[in-house]
Amino acid sequence: MVVTFTNEVATRGQGDVRDITDVVAGAVQASGCTAGAVTVFVVGSTAGVTTMEFEPGAVADLKDALERLAPRHGQYSHHLTWGDDNGSSHVRAALLGPSVAVPFAERRLFLGTWQQVVLVECDTRPRTRQVVVQVIGE
Amino acid sequence: MVVTFTNEVATRGQGDVRDITDVVAGAVQASGCTAGAVTVFVVGSTAGVTTMEFEPGAVADLKDALERLAPRHGQYSHHLTWGDDNGSSHVRAALLGPSVAVPFAERRLFLGTWQQVVLVECDTRPRTRQVVVQVIGE
Amino acid sequence: MVVTFTNEVATRGQGDVRDITDVVAGAVQASGCTAGAVTVFVVGSTAGVTTMEFEPGAVADLKDALERLAPRHGQYSHHLTWGDDNGSSHVRAALLGPSVAVPFAERRLFLGTWQQVVLVECDTRPRTRQVVVQVIGE
Repeated sequence: MVVTFTNEVATRGQGDVRDITDVVAGAVQASGCTAGAVTVFVVGSTAGVTTMEFEPGAVADLKDALERLAPRHGQYSHHLTWGDDNGSSHVRAALLGPSVAVPFAERRLFLGTWQQVVLVECDTRPRTRQVVVQVIGE
Repeated sequence: MVVTFTNEVATRGQGDVRDITDVVAGAVQASGCTAGAVTVFVVGSTAGVTTMEFEPGAVADLKDALERLAPRHGQYSHHLTWGDDNGSSHVRAALLGPSVAVPFAERRLFLGTWQQVVLVECDTRPRTRQVVVQVIGE
Repeated sequence: MVVTFTNEVATRGQGDVRDITDVVAGAVQASGCTAGAVTVFVVGSTAGVTTMEFEPGAVADLKDALERLAPRHGQYSHHLTWGDDNGSSHVRAALLGPSVAVPFAERRLFLGTWQQVVLVECDTRPRTRQVVVQVIGE
């Protein structure tokens, strides 16, 4: 059985991290599936999806690491292509990846107590993101 | 329903990025599935799969970031093991990951307009890659 | 068909990498499925899952790259939140990601000869990890 949900998530720009665990857990409940996996996928090439402990300290640390990996004010060829200012966003998103798969059984996600599913905004401006949450199971 | 395709993709060595979106979209069409998810997986430990805006500037920027992350001419213990020169390739590939899952509905992938599925070659020489595209859906 | 296995994997702390390919391959055999995909997911926010050539040199190189990415003794806001010392662990795990999906056909995983499924411990102390191996197929 395949059940697909799409959600809009508003972000405040680069470094904003959104906890979307409730959306993912809600999709499992609404799907009617008992066991399976949820694929969480963000549409677009300047945001990523992963899991982390969603607390302000860890979020700030991830933001710092992404800044070291692809500095906001570095030199990017992408800027020359489109006159854009979000070369750092593209690099960060490609490294994070757009999706994560979380298995579940007995209608419950296999997440740790301090492990949340998060959307990581990498773009340099606020965005409204389309996040696909797809349940495949039985 | 599970439908599995294997494809060969030729690359030109480290930093080469190949847009394989058409292969993935074609697999969805050929599968006969209406909704589900496609798993795109590269066989081998010196290449990765992700999504990005496939344009030369962003590709060059990703290449630069991977070079900072694991410099081509850095010191690698792997070189001592096999006499290989591709320690940087192994590190880059492990961080990128070998797979991405893309959901689809009404036979259409949930990809942004400027979001392509890409194979990122990390090895130091040209390779012919086996890319598995597996559709699970209904 | 969905078949879910949970496994405990003991680790020795930060930088320890465990080859769990046999567990994944065993799950495929035990599932009775011929074709499909295995989702390998680690519960918790301070470990990751990926694929790599599991040999001591490449493992040491990955450990070095993760140390550059998020130094063990760097400054982390997370330390201020909980008095923890594993800010580096959270950043590394979020970037690696908690899961990987590996397709299989004819009961055989599509892995390269030198490509293993690995659990990457990022926490600063030894842990017993719960690794979920879920087979979806037919």
